Amino acid sequence: MPYPKNMNKNNSNMNEEQAKAKARKPKPGFLSRFFTSSQNLFSTMTRKPFLKQTLATLFLVFILYAIFNAFFYPTDSSAAFDATTFPSVLLAAGNSNSLPVKVFLYDLPRRFTYGVIHHHAMARGSRANLDDVASLKYPGHQHMAEWYLFSDLSRPASKRAGSPVVRVADPDEADLFFVPFFSSLSLIVNPSGLDKPVYSDEENQEALVEWLEEQEYWKRSKGRDHVIVASDPNAMYRVIDRVKNCVLLVSDFGRLRLDQGSLVKDVVVPYSHRIRTYDGDVGVDKRNTLLFFMGNRYRKEGGKIRDILFQILENEEDVIIKHGAQSRESRRAASQGMHTSKFCLHPAGDTPSACRLFDAIVSLCIPVIVSDNIELPFEDTIDYKKIAIFVETASAIKTGHLVSKLRAVTPDRILKYQKELKSVKRYFEYDDPDGTVNEIWRQVSRKLPLIKLMISREKRMFGKGAECACICRNETAIRTL
Amino acid sequence: MPYPKNMNKNNSNMNEEQAKAKARKPKPGFLSRFFTSSQNLFSTMTRKPFLKQTLATLFLVFILYAIFNAFFYPTDSSAAFDATTFPSVLLAAGNSNSLPVKVFLYDLPRRFTYGVIHHHAMARGSRANLDDVASLKYPGHQHMAEWYLFSDLSRPASKRAGSPVVRVADPDEADLFFVPFFSSLSLIVNPSGLDKPVYSDEENQEALVEWLEEQEYWKRSKGRDHVIVASDPNAMYRVIDRVKNCVLLVSDFGRLRLDQGSLVKDVVVPYSHRIRTYDGDVGVDKRNTLLFFMGNRYRKEGGKIRDILFQILENEEDVIIKHGAQSRESRRAASQGMHTSKFCLHPAGDTPSACRLFDAIVSLCIPVIVSDNIELPFEDTIDYKKIAIFVETASAIKTGHLVSKLRAVTPDRILKYQKELKSVKRYFEYDDPDGTVNEIWRQVSRKLPLIKLMISREKRMFGKGAECACICRNETAIRTL
Repeated sequence: MPYPKNMNKNNSNMNEEQAKAKARKPKPGFLSRFFTSSQNLFSTMTRKPFLKQTLATLFLVFILYAIFNAFFYPTDSSAAFDATTFPSVLLAAGNSNSLPVKVFLYDLPRRFTYGVIHHHAMARGSRANLDDVASLKYPGHQHMAEWYLFSDLSRPASKRAGSPVVRVADPDEADLFFVPFFSSLSLIVNPSGLDKPVYSDEENQEALVEWLEEQEYWKRSKGRDHVIVASDPNAMYRVIDRVKNCVLLVSDFGRLRLDQGSLVKDVVVPYSHRIRTYDGDVGVDKRNTLLFFMGNRYRKEGGKIRDILFQILENEEDVIIKHGAQSRESRRAASQGMHTSKFCLHPAGDTPSACRLFDAIVSLCIPVIVSDNIELPFEDTIDYKKIAIFVETASAIKTGHLVSKLRAVTPDRILKYQKELKSVKRYFEYDDPDGTVNEIWRQVSRKLPLIKLMISREKRMFGKGAECACICRNETAIRTL
Repeated sequence: MPYPKNMNKNNSNMNEEQAKAKARKPKPGFLSRFFTSSQNLFSTMTRKPFLKQTLATLFLVFILYAIFNAFFYPTDSSAAFDATTFPSVLLAAGNSNSLPVKVFLYDLPRRFTYGVIHHHAMARGSRANLDDVASLKYPGHQHMAEWYLFSDLSRPASKRAGSPVVRVADPDEADLFFVPFFSSLSLIVNPSGLDKPVYSDEENQEALVEWLEEQEYWKRSKGRDHVIVASDPNAMYRVIDRVKNCVLLVSDFGRLRLDQGSLVKDVVVPYSHRIRTYDGDVGVDKRNTLLFFMGNRYRKEGGKIRDILFQILENEEDVIIKHGAQSRESRRAASQGMHTSKFCLHPAGDTPSACRLFDAIVSLCIPVIVSDNIELPFEDTIDYKKIAIFVETASAIKTGHLVSKLRAVTPDRILKYQKELKSVKRYFEYDDPDGTVNEIWRQVSRKLPLIKLMISREKRMFGKGAECACICRNETAIRTL
């Protein structure tokens, strides 16, 4: 776990002033270059008498003063966005692309955060103590965005330099409100096969929404400027209609209606990869398996394709396709398989997305995606055609089609895919200081203009007519109900 | 006209390299402060002998060299976004909020730009020469965004410092493609009452789309990354379904279906105000009229409200409500009226928007908006509740309601509205160097992540199912057809 367990002890250290002061500092590169040049100048003057050196030093001090003066009291227009002089008619955050977005982290009742970890631990026989949050380790699973984002915001501001968002202590200053409910962990608190459930996820979902609906800042915007992680496709299902105004951080829209979730309103986040990252270099020599898949053979809905793919592929000699459930041993076997294969199969699961895609990416194993309706994280930034091969389901189930397509890919082309995979790997590493977490915040930040617009428009609109603003593919016509 | 008439003569001077070089230059404030400080230093040294002065000058030159060196070869991370080192898997523009967006200005056949001005002039008896574009003055009217944006992009890069977009000469480098068809002027080329039309707007619209559909960059994205101005609600109506993928710059969505235009995909731009800007200070002393309106009493659709408002208001003694068409004289009278009134009525026209709102704003005359479905420009940035009074149509037509509501507004409250109006006035001044044009580009830039996402997603998606991504108000359910 890369974040300190007691990360929420220093929360109050973080405020916007510090972040601003930080932002005002000149870039280190500039001053170090300047000093180096100055030292060179000094060395050319060592033969001159002492007085001249003193004079030169004074000169330098004056020059430095002039520079610092210019830097610390900039006259450019960005300085005009100071909170104290900003006219209130202007919605500050919408006004500049370069201002860091300000996020308020709700101090939720503990039942929604550490309480969930506590229940999860207790249901597995631990005697963890809820009063000692340092003893509560968030357990590893596929949907850990909620943990990493909460941990990130909980760190002191000094450790969050470079983040696209700053945390603010005063909700009045906030552009966005982060609700750190562990909604995906909440779904899996009760171990499967338990006779008597010890915990009710549904009760907790409802309690959360009741708590939110009492909050002043929720009421003000009907939740429009609130951010909630619901990365397991089933997370928050009980209350989804009451939180659908929020920016939802999801894995896909497989279980959401068009008015509940969309690429416009929400952010698609990656699964937490569950196998070891491949740290070696690109290359085909040690990757003798053509295509690798290990996972559940039998899934619902779009995942029914899996059984058909098993039948087609299981007798191909350079293909490894194995049925296996999540376990430490199977993850170890999957790591080994993905690190030694050229291609990794990614068929749809119960919903179009699945963890395996991200395992493949960090393994530099070229994903072969057979999932026609998949949504992909950060697709405004990453061109997935350059790191993955997309095969339409109808083609993939033709005998021989998939393997002959993959066997035709030249080693040069494979190397190219691998290089591209390597260059985007960090976007899928929640642990990377400039990885998934920062990119999620960047994506969330980009929603802000539309959020501001929807809020200020809502305040002055009359009537309650059904009304949506959309972006559509191709020859699509839509109408409101 | 604030832009040089022969602005397109130097187009070829403008390329991205220059723009980049410009972006790297230190801010003028910095160097001028630096030189001032240095001059002060020199003046303290005038009593020293000549040699020392020379030495000091040399020293200064070295220091300046060091500074320039540091500035022109920056080591900060933004330099990493250089096109040559950027991995191609990353969609450059989506990757940083702070990069200026790169726009390619199509060199359209002249029939779509100066040809339209030429036809407009000829239809009014001018003998203007199409070969001498400097002689072709774009005529003033309500929908001049198309002219100002074209003029802005046509200026040399050196005059576009501070713009949220840079023009690039190479379309391969472009994030967005600007199509400078004068679509609103094209609508009004034929003077009303002409027996035999001299020009066909519809033919020109179709010719434009045929030309566009031949362009490599249009084909690549099906127009998704193209920007077209259609600010008159009737502009481009003939071909709207063939350009609906584009970012449309519109006045409202009154004549567009949900899949043709939306707040998500498009940008609402202000009308060009048609009366003189009020340059005086805030105050109520010289504003003796309570409410002012001058315009067409009889309009279609939502504009039918106007006749009812005339009946209710025309006998109120502190209200001026006059029927009048557009003319130089009526504009002079409207300037006078708006500059001496506290409130200015803005009822819906044929579509929910109208020029009058922007006349009122630049007059510091508080807009009273009676138009339930109006869309407002830059509403992610401007909180219109702070500069305007919104009255629901159903209430506005109750006898006495409007005037008693306005009479109850205290002078202090009026001053507050006026101050807010003054602080946002520049957003409605197409002439202002940091006014409407820059704000439109900023709004267009904010569409880029979604455009990049739609394009890269489209390339790898299978199937042609109807599909929209939406953001909705309240309890709305939508479904695709």
